[in-house]
Amino acid sequence: MSTTQNHHNHATATLLIDCPDRKGLVAGIANFLYSHNANILHADQHQDASLNLFLMRVEWDLEGFDLNDEQFREAFAPIAGQFNMRWRVQYSAAKTQVAIFVSKYDHCLVDLLYRYRSGEFNCEIPLVVSNHPDAREIVEFYGIPFHVIPVTAETKQTAEQQQIDLLQAHNVDLVVLARYMQVLSPTFVSAYAGKVINVHHSFLPAFIGAKPYHRAYDRGVKLIGATSHYVTEVLDEGPIIEQDVIRVSHRDSLEDFIATGRDLEKTVLSRAVRWHCDHRILVYGNKTAIFVS
Amino acid sequence: MSTTQNHHNHATATLLIDCPDRKGLVAGIANFLYSHNANILHADQHQDASLNLFLMRVEWDLEGFDLNDEQFREAFAPIAGQFNMRWRVQYSAAKTQVAIFVSKYDHCLVDLLYRYRSGEFNCEIPLVVSNHPDAREIVEFYGIPFHVIPVTAETKQTAEQQQIDLLQAHNVDLVVLARYMQVLSPTFVSAYAGKVINVHHSFLPAFIGAKPYHRAYDRGVKLIGATSHYVTEVLDEGPIIEQDVIRVSHRDSLEDFIATGRDLEKTVLSRAVRWHCDHRILVYGNKTAIFVS
Amino acid sequence: MSTTQNHHNHATATLLIDCPDRKGLVAGIANFLYSHNANILHADQHQDASLNLFLMRVEWDLEGFDLNDEQFREAFAPIAGQFNMRWRVQYSAAKTQVAIFVSKYDHCLVDLLYRYRSGEFNCEIPLVVSNHPDAREIVEFYGIPFHVIPVTAETKQTAEQQQIDLLQAHNVDLVVLARYMQVLSPTFVSAYAGKVINVHHSFLPAFIGAKPYHRAYDRGVKLIGATSHYVTEVLDEGPIIEQDVIRVSHRDSLEDFIATGRDLEKTVLSRAVRWHCDHRILVYGNKTAIFVS
Amino acid sequence: MSTTQNHHNHATATLLIDCPDRKGLVAGIANFLYSHNANILHADQHQDASLNLFLMRVEWDLEGFDLNDEQFREAFAPIAGQFNMRWRVQYSAAKTQVAIFVSKYDHCLVDLLYRYRSGEFNCEIPLVVSNHPDAREIVEFYGIPFHVIPVTAETKQTAEQQQIDLLQAHNVDLVVLARYMQVLSPTFVSAYAGKVINVHHSFLPAFIGAKPYHRAYDRGVKLIGATSHYVTEVLDEGPIIEQDVIRVSHRDSLEDFIATGRDLEKTVLSRAVRWHCDHRILVYGNKTAIFVS
Repeated sequence: MSTTQNHHNHATATLLIDCPDRKGLVAGIANFLYSHNANILHADQHQDASLNLFLMRVEWDLEGFDLNDEQFREAFAPIAGQFNMRWRVQYSAAKTQVAIFVSKYDHCLVDLLYRYRSGEFNCEIPLVVSNHPDAREIVEFYGIPFHVIPVTAETKQTAEQQQIDLLQAHNVDLVVLARYMQVLSPTFVSAYAGKVINVHHSFLPAFIGAKPYHRAYDRGVKLIGATSHYVTEVLDEGPIIEQDVIRVSHRDSLEDFIATGRDLEKTVLSRAVRWHCDHRILVYGNKTAIFVS
Repeated sequence: MSTTQNHHNHATATLLIDCPDRKGLVAGIANFLYSHNANILHADQHQDASLNLFLMRVEWDLEGFDLNDEQFREAFAPIAGQFNMRWRVQYSAAKTQVAIFVSKYDHCLVDLLYRYRSGEFNCEIPLVVSNHPDAREIVEFYGIPFHVIPVTAETKQTAEQQQIDLLQAHNVDLVVLARYMQVLSPTFVSAYAGKVINVHHSFLPAFIGAKPYHRAYDRGVKLIGATSHYVTEVLDEGPIIEQDVIRVSHRDSLEDFIATGRDLEKTVLSRAVRWHCDHRILVYGNKTAIFVS
Repeated sequence: MSTTQNHHNHATATLLIDCPDRKGLVAGIANFLYSHNANILHADQHQDASLNLFLMRVEWDLEGFDLNDEQFREAFAPIAGQFNMRWRVQYSAAKTQVAIFVSKYDHCLVDLLYRYRSGEFNCEIPLVVSNHPDAREIVEFYGIPFHVIPVTAETKQTAEQQQIDLLQAHNVDLVVLARYMQVLSPTFVSAYAGKVINVHHSFLPAFIGAKPYHRAYDRGVKLIGATSHYVTEVLDEGPIIEQDVIRVSHRDSLEDFIATGRDLEKTVLSRAVRWHCDHRILVYGNKTAIFVS
Repeated sequence: MSTTQNHHNHATATLLIDCPDRKGLVAGIANFLYSHNANILHADQHQDASLNLFLMRVEWDLEGFDLNDEQFREAFAPIAGQFNMRWRVQYSAAKTQVAIFVSKYDHCLVDLLYRYRSGEFNCEIPLVVSNHPDAREIVEFYGIPFHVIPVTAETKQTAEQQQIDLLQAHNVDLVVLARYMQVLSPTFVSAYAGKVINVHHSFLPAFIGAKPYHRAYDRGVKLIGATSHYVTEVLDEGPIIEQDVIRVSHRDSLEDFIATGRDLEKTVLSRAVRWHCDHRILVYGNKTAIFVS
């Protein structure tokens, strides 16, 4: 599977669009970009015939392009209005600010931190938040501030307010739940709608909820899976970003399921983070279009 | 994945055992076989520690072996009793007699017929049964009698009795539901317990019941799957034999899901049939051990 | 993996382009199509930065489009010239005419025939050619004329001329080598450059040449594969269209490799045929871009 | 795929055997173990009919077993002699001592260190050796001594002697080449025959030698792979332990191949290390049997 990882040597801008499908859309967008001297690096579009929906991602080199971020927004607005677009543009100088939330299981965290340091993610990670102190050492090894905010049934509201204060203080655009074992309140979720990515350790919609590996083991499945998805108010029901599976057999114990599954969780979560930070994901309805081009 | 396909040039016998795990089991079985001059071709065993269960499949060459089918049953009974075994033995001369049930979708049927003719299945197929006449031509092309038994809500009981009469007349050991679109009654299922294999077009337990591709499409999954399983009284809840998945994306329409899924259905169903006919499947609880050796 | 299978209910046209990458390309093409009232159904493009190459596939509904096939060629020529394009356009009314070549192994043939009858391929198959009579019965079952042209070292040149005469008589656009065991002469290959698809039973470039399963078995690989590719004058070196693999183990015999591999061969060959007939494949250098959108 | 990871709560012993296949072998071994009161936890055997070879792995609980390591070797020798066995036994108290060799690419190293700390490997890692200083920080984070031994064409012999001295000083049983970019001399290889595992970044035997991703990119493959194998004197020709692949497309740049491939390399190398340390690998000829049970 393509997991395209473009290393942007130049400054680029990315435009994501969805709107009702109409003749003249591509021409309208292409002419706009051409008239401002854009050198298109990647363009990818999709028509969902069943919804009459047009989806597009286009990325261009900023060298020679004659609009800055603010000017773009102003100049593009009339076209967007004409075609009834939902749209957003990102200039690469403004990197996504990511906070990782973790509890005790640290395999996804450690994987994300290494990939981050290796330059796989087009983002900055100003902080890691945990309800346990266990991960401090490895987080600080990578030079990232680590914040412990314990959460109990009684303190949950206060704890979430502390988390939100931290996120706001760091201008966080994306929260990654790296096996964070607390359910976020509807208040939190709606404050960060479309900005929280979770990993669930099953191929959703199988085994929604608690202890998916235990239930997979009891059911005698021949494949186990993991799913990364955006968090919505309904548990494990948000738009799916990525899924993967691995074969198991009667020879695998529950402990084997859990150990093997860790690698799947790392894979699907890291892909989701990379794609989100490269602005490759467009959410429409309860689905995602992933533009890997 | 190993899908071992042994072409038995010699006559062989296969013994499948499950019992409480105890010291001396393997020695007991091995000594019995050795004392009767068995040349073991394949042996595979598994201990399920969580259930304290011992599972074994052993296959040996009959050349030089000094017991026939009937003598084996008599001679082995004391050991089986001593270790509290559930067991069965199959001499390869007695091939599994398979009936295929089909409705209108014929991709699994056509795949099974070709594999049968190619010698992939260690079985005989004396008949195909359908509630529609559509598949007659291809079935008869392969020289197999084709029986149309229409099924309606009113005639279901009579129709099932006709089916059972046919199965009994042909000494059928295994019924393969190759996208047969009628739910079998509890009476039928209990008459052929452990002897009916179905293919469901999802990775169970996701999308149990009707229209799984439609629901997968609506959910926005990134993988679709198929599952072969033994039929029990609870729909889509029987012991899973095999599962497989394939990647889909937002670019795939519902029609693509259905078309792509057909290949998965063929794969998981044909493996299940091959393994069953090679006596590689041991059902314990609601799970299967698949001895592919 | 996406294996998009669009069922064209309407007449459509497909344009495939490759040319040096330049600003204004997309705008130029989009404006041309828009000015002739095209309703774009799918558009997919790719920039190969290392080659400064622009590749595009665009498919539109012909309802309301104001150019027929001939008019399109005339009207588009100036734009094509301006941007130095290699291009071709296909109107869906002109289906690809496919000839299948087969020898004795018939699994790919039977798979292709069934898919063809099921409507998976956007093509017509006016004939099947073989150097052996074995496949006649199944080919004629599907109502397709079957031609036996024996090939020996001495008769090869004459036999190929007979084949080419048949292909020309049926206006064949694509020759599918479905485990056809004769090497085509350079004369044949150059006469049908880019129009012959072969399946090789290894993941190329491993095990080029004869007996790849035997050599894979001897090497002790843990995966076996198959590859579909366009045929060029250098054996097994043509542009790769599709590859797939399956896991094997020490438990698998050479016979298992061969039997398991058959399913891979069917998969990669049928995908190649579908994509070619849907005009999704663009060959550049010795590579293929596959536009599955 | 099964990647069984048994966490041995009890002391166990593992016996690996290969010998000419003969009647009575299993009975002989089973009786020996039973007579010394072994509680068998896992047993797995394989007959390679083409070589007339019998391969077996058996693991039993040491609680109640009446032979220690030394006594076992003495008591088992007569049976081993009778059946002409190559065999080895490992008592779990004697953990495999592993040295990791690394150069500048540290993704495999970091992955191995994390898995080691998480208890995935049944081994001890007393040292990491590198020809570059770069990895010191992360290795020492995990509390493992880090030795820099620079290697140049002139100093190679001396450097290897230093390496061997270190390995001997730490009683190292297994050397893991985690993208170590120096070719080991025949002297080193023969001193550690069957005890050096390498990862090659292609699905061998494709792209033997240097720059496999570059060559895969140039060839236009649709799958890239990685292979772990035992090192022998012929480069990239040793017995294959594990292979895996991932799909790529024309959209992937060479940099994408390299980045995506890193995950494959981690996977196949870590499985090889785990299986080796669990004594699941039996080398015969130039092949491996992997007993994952």
